[in-house]
Amino acid sequence: MIITGEAFIGGKAVMGGGSSFQAYNPSLRAHMEPAFGMVTREQIDQACQLAKAAFDAFRALSDEARAAFLDAVGEQIMALGDALIERAMAESGLPRVRLEGERGRTVNQLKLFATLLREGSWQDARIDSALPERQPPRPDLRMRMVGVGPVAVFAASNFPLAFSVAGGDTAAAFAAGCPVVLKAHSAHPGTSELVARAIVRAVEQCELPAGVFALLTGTGNGIGQALVAHPAIQAVGFTGSRSGGVALMGVAAARPQPIPVYAEMSSINPLLVLPNALAARGEAIAAGFAASLTMGVGQFCTNPGLVLGIAGEDFDRFGQQAAAALQGFEAATMLTPGIAESYQVGVTEMSAHERVEVLVNGQHAECKGAAALFKTSGESFMAEHKLHGEMFGPASLLVACRDEAELLAIVEQLEGQLTATLQMDQGDYELARSLLPALERKAGRILANGFPTGVEVSSAMVHGGPFPATSDGRSSSVGTAAITRFLRPVCYQNLPQELLPESLKDGSGRQVWRRRDGELTKE
Amino acid sequence: MIITGEAFIGGKAVMGGGSSFQAYNPSLRAHMEPAFGMVTREQIDQACQLAKAAFDAFRALSDEARAAFLDAVGEQIMALGDALIERAMAESGLPRVRLEGERGRTVNQLKLFATLLREGSWQDARIDSALPERQPPRPDLRMRMVGVGPVAVFAASNFPLAFSVAGGDTAAAFAAGCPVVLKAHSAHPGTSELVARAIVRAVEQCELPAGVFALLTGTGNGIGQALVAHPAIQAVGFTGSRSGGVALMGVAAARPQPIPVYAEMSSINPLLVLPNALAARGEAIAAGFAASLTMGVGQFCTNPGLVLGIAGEDFDRFGQQAAAALQGFEAATMLTPGIAESYQVGVTEMSAHERVEVLVNGQHAECKGAAALFKTSGESFMAEHKLHGEMFGPASLLVACRDEAELLAIVEQLEGQLTATLQMDQGDYELARSLLPALERKAGRILANGFPTGVEVSSAMVHGGPFPATSDGRSSSVGTAAITRFLRPVCYQNLPQELLPESLKDGSGRQVWRRRDGELTKE
Repeated sequence: MIITGEAFIGGKAVMGGGSSFQAYNPSLRAHMEPAFGMVTREQIDQACQLAKAAFDAFRALSDEARAAFLDAVGEQIMALGDALIERAMAESGLPRVRLEGERGRTVNQLKLFATLLREGSWQDARIDSALPERQPPRPDLRMRMVGVGPVAVFAASNFPLAFSVAGGDTAAAFAAGCPVVLKAHSAHPGTSELVARAIVRAVEQCELPAGVFALLTGTGNGIGQALVAHPAIQAVGFTGSRSGGVALMGVAAARPQPIPVYAEMSSINPLLVLPNALAARGEAIAAGFAASLTMGVGQFCTNPGLVLGIAGEDFDRFGQQAAAALQGFEAATMLTPGIAESYQVGVTEMSAHERVEVLVNGQHAECKGAAALFKTSGESFMAEHKLHGEMFGPASLLVACRDEAELLAIVEQLEGQLTATLQMDQGDYELARSLLPALERKAGRILANGFPTGVEVSSAMVHGGPFPATSDGRSSSVGTAAITRFLRPVCYQNLPQELLPESLKDGSGRQVWRRRDGELTKE
Repeated sequence: MIITGEAFIGGKAVMGGGSSFQAYNPSLRAHMEPAFGMVTREQIDQACQLAKAAFDAFRALSDEARAAFLDAVGEQIMALGDALIERAMAESGLPRVRLEGERGRTVNQLKLFATLLREGSWQDARIDSALPERQPPRPDLRMRMVGVGPVAVFAASNFPLAFSVAGGDTAAAFAAGCPVVLKAHSAHPGTSELVARAIVRAVEQCELPAGVFALLTGTGNGIGQALVAHPAIQAVGFTGSRSGGVALMGVAAARPQPIPVYAEMSSINPLLVLPNALAARGEAIAAGFAASLTMGVGQFCTNPGLVLGIAGEDFDRFGQQAAAALQGFEAATMLTPGIAESYQVGVTEMSAHERVEVLVNGQHAECKGAAALFKTSGESFMAEHKLHGEMFGPASLLVACRDEAELLAIVEQLEGQLTATLQMDQGDYELARSLLPALERKAGRILANGFPTGVEVSSAMVHGGPFPATSDGRSSSVGTAAITRFLRPVCYQNLPQELLPESLKDGSGRQVWRRRDGELTKE
């Protein structure tokens, strides 16, 4: 399969009109062919205008038609075959098994949203019957959700398939009836081109307006900022760094018409090892923790970057066991030279901190990250906000709390998180009960006796959390709940049946859940 | 009932420690007793800290307990008796019948949210069953909505009961389990104190933590800005001017932890009189329009400030008929001297605009607003963005469009609106069908053959719309959908039954809708 280095605008491959850049193979430490063109302002504008023009037709599709499109995207991705996996391996340094798994996840994610559309209750259809006898009379009121408009999606570097061109944000936006203008990540432009090709084929196959999807190629911040500032764009999905997300939030808020930004940014995912669990199975927890920390060279948003326990022999032993497990982890290739460098800088800073003890600090190499484990006291952690920052990679900080009160105080001081994990046995439940209210305020997902890496794509998943885990803790970027980010309600008052949308008509042929006079019914 | 001029913090009446101000009776054009104290920074901080401290206990209440609290607030408001109505009449210049109706609406709004809590599906409970056999195994995942935290609510001037201290924002926040720190509107501080007293009594009666509610008194912008900037506050509800709302959006976005702002701000509520309806019943529509425009001296967010029609004899006649109906409307007292003055300035500017024809321009007086009606061409309206602004009061602009294409082009050029209304007969349906997609993008509520004033409090109502109608078009500030503004999802992975919230336990005694493996069920 030939990769040409082109962007996709209006269903056509077009070379970005600006300067050129190349993909980089972090395993071989070498640039790759071909050259990609940076899109120009004019090309960004064209993509956004086409998305705007496509919006009404795309959102007017039946649920079945949009579901069929999502299925078609998945099929076209599979039809790319091994060329996709090979290019993704070369561009990301990730192993085959991981990328094949990620492809499966990506396709299943599209299918799950297709199922959601076919089920139909995503529209939150509501009907309040007219009450003509009441004084004053109540009109007939009907409500449903509609898409917000074209969505700018920023692909992430760490999941070149599942959080990239046809990833969760794109699937959710398409499901909501929103065209997507996608800013490809410059770490895997070839992978992006291949997946974009699959989407464009699905658009053609389903005879949709070409503006439903565009792929913008480039490096740096200029393209993304111009995209978010474009008046046609009505919402933003982003997965990446805190600084990147916060910058886009600023651009979106400064527009003449501000728009919502869903940025998934930064989380250290505290793992709380409670005393009874620590005593009974500290070694197993240490082993599980080390495996979770180093999986994918620690390049997961849900990586356990913070471990909280009560100071004492058990927690000391836990530190030694975790350190021993991490010693066996060899430095491995990271996604990009930039990520490896940032990681090494973060680890070096942590190592140099006077209030931090170094338990493990493996030997890094160019483009490679080694495991690192640090330890500090609860008091130091509370006093030094710098210790709360994310080191994106296989590094974690153990915090030995003086007592349960200090553990709770530390949880209260944490910033927003994607996840929080409790390792606990029956004897810990009372303590857990006292921690849960604070954890609920701090995190989008609370795990018991597991590890936070591994994010199921399902109905009940929440991959979100209060700032800075995300820009908007009221939502999830994984699972079907993600669709609500790209929807807004519209109410119809006394609109004649002929003019109502299908989902709100009386006796619509389809059996869909609706809320009639406040009660859920399937008529 | 004695009004003392105090704020309420921690369940106690306390005099604001800053300078003092008085309420103003716009009918008598005189200040009223007593003096109110402006709250200080320290008092704002105290109210927010107490709200934070009360949050966990308040949100942990059962749905029934929180519903009982909402009911109690309603009962305590009714128990204020006629003193409330009399004070509100004096402070607002609104007539008794309107305020009695508004009190009924306020109490029913509280009851509706109590019903929503008792029904239970507001929690959006979801359970994805564990799949231990799958590779990799799926954990047990359960999701529910929880409150976002303490909410700052800004009372509006134009509904001293229904959009004020115990208004829609407060009811929705309480229902979501969020404590409320309320910034009283300085146009009706005595009314606010009375209602705050009712809420404080309900808090005591239900034995809730005193921090669940606070009332802050004062004038100007400083108190509101300090409130929104306070780290304990997690969301903002506001109804008021565009400049005020945009300022608060700026404060919220600039916080170290940005928070959502739900500001309902500015709308001119286009009324589209389509050709067949215009020909068949133009006179009746003109009469209905004039009544809607002048109701409450035009001081509704949904006031029809813009009428679009196709140029021609019918539309000319419509203008004459509407003008004739408006001539009979005598200048009436507006809510505050400031509102009357702003209105008069807006009307004067519109009158002086060289591309605008004046059909009606009644005689204003101090604190009073007279009806005004203007006319311009579609071309002029499209060329002059100034003509798109809101004149808060009984003034409207008729726009004669050259043809249907220009009508559609104007709709496309409009900013976001709370409502859009179609006056249409069967022969207009084809035109209506071509307008609906654009209207759906522009407005939160679309009415057929009615007038936009009058907002039902119900399940299917949407009182919202794209910016600048609101800061966040993904929500409604009226009706039960308003609760979602103050909720966020939390997912529990493999949490033991003993530690799960009631709504997510297996075989919970209560029959509540939950989504199990993607399907709605009531077990």
